[in-house]
Parts: sequence; structure tokens; C-alpha cells
Amino acid sequence: MTTVNLSGVVLAEIDGSVSAPDGFRSAGVACGIKKNGSLDLALIVSDRPASAAAVFTTNKAQAAPVLVSKARLAASGGHARAIVINSGCANACTGPDGLETAEAMADTAARGAGAERNEVLVASTGVIGVALDRRTVLDGIDSAFAALNHSGGAAAARAIMTTDPFPKEAAVEATTTAGRFRVGGVAKGSGMIEPLMATMLAVVTTDAQVAPGVLQRALAAAADVTFNAITVDGECSTNDCVFALANGASGVAIGERQFDLLVGALRHVCETLAIGIVRGGEGATKLVTIDVTGARDDAEAKKAARAIGNSPLVKTAVHGADPNWGRLVAVAGRAGVDFALERARVQIGDVVLFADGRPFDERAPQASTHLQGADVSLLVDLGTRGSGRARMWTCDLSADYVKINAEYRT
Amino acid sequence: MTTVNLSGVVLAEIDGSVSAPDGFRSAGVACGIKKNGSLDLALIVSDRPASAAAVFTTNKAQAAPVLVSKARLAASGGHARAIVINSGCANACTGPDGLETAEAMADTAARGAGAERNEVLVASTGVIGVALDRRTVLDGIDSAFAALNHSGGAAAARAIMTTDPFPKEAAVEATTTAGRFRVGGVAKGSGMIEPLMATMLAVVTTDAQVAPGVLQRALAAAADVTFNAITVDGECSTNDCVFALANGASGVAIGERQFDLLVGALRHVCETLAIGIVRGGEGATKLVTIDVTGARDDAEAKKAARAIGNSPLVKTAVHGADPNWGRLVAVAGRAGVDFALERARVQIGDVVLFADGRPFDERAPQASTHLQGADVSLLVDLGTRGSGRARMWTCDLSADYVKINAEYRT
Repeated sequence: MTTVNLSGVVLAEIDGSVSAPDGFRSAGVACGIKKNGSLDLALIVSDRPASAAAVFTTNKAQAAPVLVSKARLAASGGHARAIVINSGCANACTGPDGLETAEAMADTAARGAGAERNEVLVASTGVIGVALDRRTVLDGIDSAFAALNHSGGAAAARAIMTTDPFPKEAAVEATTTAGRFRVGGVAKGSGMIEPLMATMLAVVTTDAQVAPGVLQRALAAAADVTFNAITVDGECSTNDCVFALANGASGVAIGERQFDLLVGALRHVCETLAIGIVRGGEGATKLVTIDVTGARDDAEAKKAARAIGNSPLVKTAVHGADPNWGRLVAVAGRAGVDFALERARVQIGDVVLFADGRPFDERAPQASTHLQGADVSLLVDLGTRGSGRARMWTCDLSADYVKINAEYRT
Repeated sequence: MTTVNLSGVVLAEIDGSVSAPDGFRSAGVACGIKKNGSLDLALIVSDRPASAAAVFTTNKAQAAPVLVSKARLAASGGHARAIVINSGCANACTGPDGLETAEAMADTAARGAGAERNEVLVASTGVIGVALDRRTVLDGIDSAFAALNHSGGAAAARAIMTTDPFPKEAAVEATTTAGRFRVGGVAKGSGMIEPLMATMLAVVTTDAQVAPGVLQRALAAAADVTFNAITVDGECSTNDCVFALANGASGVAIGERQFDLLVGALRHVCETLAIGIVRGGEGATKLVTIDVTGARDDAEAKKAARAIGNSPLVKTAVHGADPNWGRLVAVAGRAGVDFALERARVQIGDVVLFADGRPFDERAPQASTHLQGADVSLLVDLGTRGSGRARMWTCDLSADYVKINAEYRT
């Protein structure tokens, strides 16, 4: 159990995930969407009314469940009792039929949870353009209600996987002067033996009592520096969603004054899940932490860090443990941000390879040693004399990525 | 010999490249920058004063030769007599020493050509951050002057290669009512066994008589739909340059009224070279032509086409002949342009796989047959009812790309 001291509050990592906080139950069942019999439907239910918040994909091609969840979250004024997620089919680009299936999933889950029609969020992940069989998924929701329990988080984490190499779960307990509360979460990442399974989905629950507006802002703030700070291949899916539920079962109320505390706890869980997604990226053999400093502002730092994280030349060099610092300079220079070559600095691990316009190529062997590990850190200072900074996480680009994604689907 | 009728003018493809137009000589020599003894220095000289134009990399980390060529082109008011290009070393991120070497290269070439100091353009391609040996390259320039001749284009095309699998040359002859003129060119692309050799360089010559301002606008227009419409891996190097020289030796004068004719001839040569760069992209097995239609305007169409051309999911699917039209929808949706899913259309070869919000997945096998060829065409209509359109060329993403770029340099 790791403990983190967060401005006077103790955050301790605990076992479990979405049903670790009080008053939540979850389940993962196999209902036949995946033809190989593995878990393919997850259900997360709060035993009491809960505030809800969500961050949705910015892709303009939005899957049916994204449209349905957006509409219901708006109609409920930020409340939900249940979240239902299927894997094995994205229910995207499926026309009016697909939309009806997503609505039916939400309706069925609302009835099962004894909730208002709009108090359900729904998500799907899997192949685009293939119909989701309505009877199969609705029967699956019924089975999931029968299987709900307080330690169902692990099954839920497995049921949302597509070809992720491992499930992603995390939970923390925060000890405050007002009492204890918990935050837990599950996520899935991208593993794409079957095509189009790049969807990023995550659910975070907490037994703190939080108003919907506060929860939404806290989730957005936490997602911005965690889920929005990772990249596997620069793709953004039609189905990406992060959901949060807060049911107040702990008796600890979080208002504006405790906002940073809530963000800190959410961030801890989201960062663990987000890093798990990168480690499980398709073909990934290394976790790469990219820090950009010396930017005009944080937004420019993030833009440069994202360009580095998506650069195939950087990602292949890391894969081959090649300390090609010049690739980092070239990407920073083309990232569309303020950049001053004569003051820029590049560091791989602790090794400075370029500074003040001059190369230190003789240090390449030390940098290569660092790159041979499973955890790699890259730092680029843009040399603008600004104080903007950002951190991104990515993985290396291996031949396995190509093999996984070039495989024929039918 | 292919002939193309260009608004009343006949354009015929002819043999040769940069010295095919009258009054140009060229050479390619091995001067020892590349340790394996292959050609590594190209020289192109006009026997008479010539107008000059250039398009430079937009990367903010600019190599020494880029800085020198920019300055000299400005100082000469758009005139040049010679272009000198070395491969094997990019002379980028090399500090004040590197700048002095680039200046010395230009000075030496100016003396050799009997030209004014500012009437030389210089370019380099190869490893970033490694010093270019000054004595070696200056001796090479002397040898290249001794080797200059009217059929030296093929050697020049080879001398600018890094690990390109084949040289890129093209030339056309335009027959007009005012007489004949020729346009010829060489280019190098990206093949990166050694790291950081992604530089795109091209030189185009013509014996038409063109004022510097007209030549600059014509080159920019031609490059925009050719060199700026290709992508291998979305990277933009510190050294990219396209140079044009027009010496008037044909006696055919091109003014504002013949502007479109000049652009047409330049475009033909540049397109042939640009497509050659894509076919020779590292690890490439297929040339992919991407057409985007139905965009709000041409700029949005180009933005979407570029996003598709840089998508690792699209490029790996093409590599595997997998007709994953959903990936095209997902990329168009995240490209940051106006997009209407309900009216969008996706076509692979002649096969429509998605239209009016509905999938036609049963046609996937026909699309797969098309994808198995070496020339692949993808069309995405963004469904906005606008008339914007754009074409881009890219290659597939293979495991060989990763192998080539992950290999350790030292």
C-alpha cells in the first residue's frame, strides 16, 4: 500500500476498483457478443442516487452510445445510477438501428437499477460498422444485474477489454479531517488484433458527496493531465468516454473548498489507469515519459510533447534504444510552437545530449543504456525562456504494432 | 514518351533531369563524406545567369545550409548560378562551425561557377548533430566542377540519395506557339537506415526565361500540390528544400500570361518526383492516393487528407490489405475539420463501403482485392455539401519501417 501526502491529506492506494468505494456494486459477464466466450459486458451500479460527470471523444464521427450518454447526462442534470459497457462491438457508424440499440441498453439498465430513464450512461467498444445484436446485449444486461456485487470490479475491468494485454484497475482511500472517502476506477486501452479497437474507456467512482457541476470540473481537470496526456498512436476513437459517479456513501462532502483534494484523488486513480493503457499499448515494450519545459505556456508545451509522443521516428528510435536526440529537436521544431534552437536542451534519462545549440554526441552510449530499460524518460526544453511545461506518456513503436494492425479482419 | 496536352500546349516527358534543359550542366561525385565510397556531392550549374526560387522547411530547427541559402537568395534578389548539395551529413544542430562550413561551401561553388558570392544555393542531408568535415566537402566541390557535363543529371540524382532505394529524376519538354522549353528535376526522399535522414530535397531547372518573382510563385504553386501533398511518416526535417533555376537558354519567355503554363510544366516534373519519394518511402510496399471531397473548402480537404495519410491505423490496414473503412471515418472525424457522418462516403478503389450513414460491409472482399495491388486509392467525402477537395499521396506502414528506423546508429 503506497501512501501519498496530498496537501495535508493522506492518499493511500488500496485494492479494488469501481466497487471499492462504499455503495457501489459491479459485475462483468459473458453474454455472447465476443464469439470466444470471454467477458463482454460490464455493469456498475450505485445503490443510491449519484452525481455523474463525463468526458467524451471530440471525434466528429460519434458512436451511438456516445450520443445516448450525452443526451441522458444532459437530461438528468448530471445524475446517474448505472453505467453499462459492452466490448466486442463499437456500435459506431451503424445508423438508426444502432442508436435504438444503445437507447434500449440504457432503458434496460435503468429498469434494472430502479432508476429514472435518464440516469444511465452507456458505452461500447469493438469493431466499427458492425451491428450490435440487441437481444444478446439486453439479455447480457439482465445477467449482469444478477451478478452484481461489492467485489465485482475485477470482472468489470476484464469485461471492457478488447485485446488489452491486461486489465486496468486502481483505487485510493483519502483520509481527511472530515473522514475517509474512496475513489476507484477501471479503464481499457488499445490493443487491436481486431481492427478499430482503439477506444479508450474509463469509469471512476467515488463515495464522496460531490455536486454534479463540481464533479464535472474535477473530472475534466484530472482527465486533462492523465487520459488526455497519453498517446499510443495519435488516433482518437469514435467511442472514447470517461465517466465518473459520486454517491456520497462515505459521508464526506466535497465542495469548492476541497476541489483540489478531489482532483488530486481522481488524478491519482486516473494516472494509474492511463499509464496502464500506455504500457498495454499494442506492440508496446517501453513506457516513455516525455517532459517539455521552457515553452511559452503550458498549452504550447503540451502541443510539443504530443508531437514528440506521436512521432514515428522518436518512437522507433526508443524501440531500438537509439539515442537519436536530433529527432527530438526536429520534432520540437516542427510542432508549431515557439522554439529557440540556440537555447534548446535535450535530455535522455539524466544525459544531456544537446544544449545551447551544441551537440554532446559523445554521451550517446550512456543515453542508449537508459533507453534499453522498460521505463524511458525524454526531456526537451524549447529554449523560449517561458515557464510553460507539460508531461505526456507514450509507448515505443514496434514491428508488432504493424503486425497487429495489418492483420486482415474477415 | 508520354505527352500531355496542357491547355493548347503539348507537354512531353523526356529523358534526363536537371541538365536536360539547355544551358545546364551537372555532376555527382564521391568525395568521402559517406564512408562507403558512394556518390555524396551533387553540383548543378547554369552556364548563364539564372533566376532562382526556393521553398524551405517550415521547421524552426533549421540546418546551417538552409540559413545560408535563405540569406543568399534574399541578397541576390532571386538569382543563382549554382546549387551544391551534399549527402551523408545534414550539417544541422552543429553550431557556429557548421554555419561557417555551409558558407564556405557556397563561397567555393561561387568561385568555381564564376558567379557573384550570393548566386549559390546550398543544401545538405544526412545525420543531424554531426560535424561536416570542411576540407572534405570543399575538395568535393572542386572535383564536381571538374566533372560537370550536360548529361550529369543521373549522377547528381544519385549523389543526393541517402538510403533512398532508387534515384528520382524527371523532365518534360513543352511545345508552345513561342517555341520549346524544358523543365527537369531531381529529388531525394526518405530512407532512413541511418537516423534522421528524412530530408526531402529537390532541384528543378528550366531553360525558360522567367523573372525571379514569377518563378518563386510558380514554384510555390507547383510544390503545394506535389511535394507538399505527400507524406511518408508526417515528419518534417530540419533540411527540407526545393530549389528552382530558370536560365532562359531556350529563348522562350514566360510572363504573367503564361504563368499557368509554367506551373503546369513544373507541376508535372514535381509530381513525378514527389510520387517517386513516396514509392521509395522507407519500408513502403504500396503507393496510396488519397482523395478527400465534400469539404467546406480546399484547405479543410487537405487537412483531412493529411490526417488520413499520417494515420498509422490507416497505413497498417492498407499494408495488410484490410478494407477497414471505419478507420477512415474515425480519422476524418478527428481531423479537426467540418464533417457530417450522416452524409459522409468512403470508397476504396471503386468500392463504396459507407454512404449516407450506412455501412456496406458485405463489399469488403472486393475492396480487399483492390488493396492487394501496389497502387491503392482511398476516397473520403466529408459530407459537408461544400466543394472543397484535395489529393495527397502516402505509402503503407510496414514492419520494415520500424526495423529501418529502430536500428542503432552507433
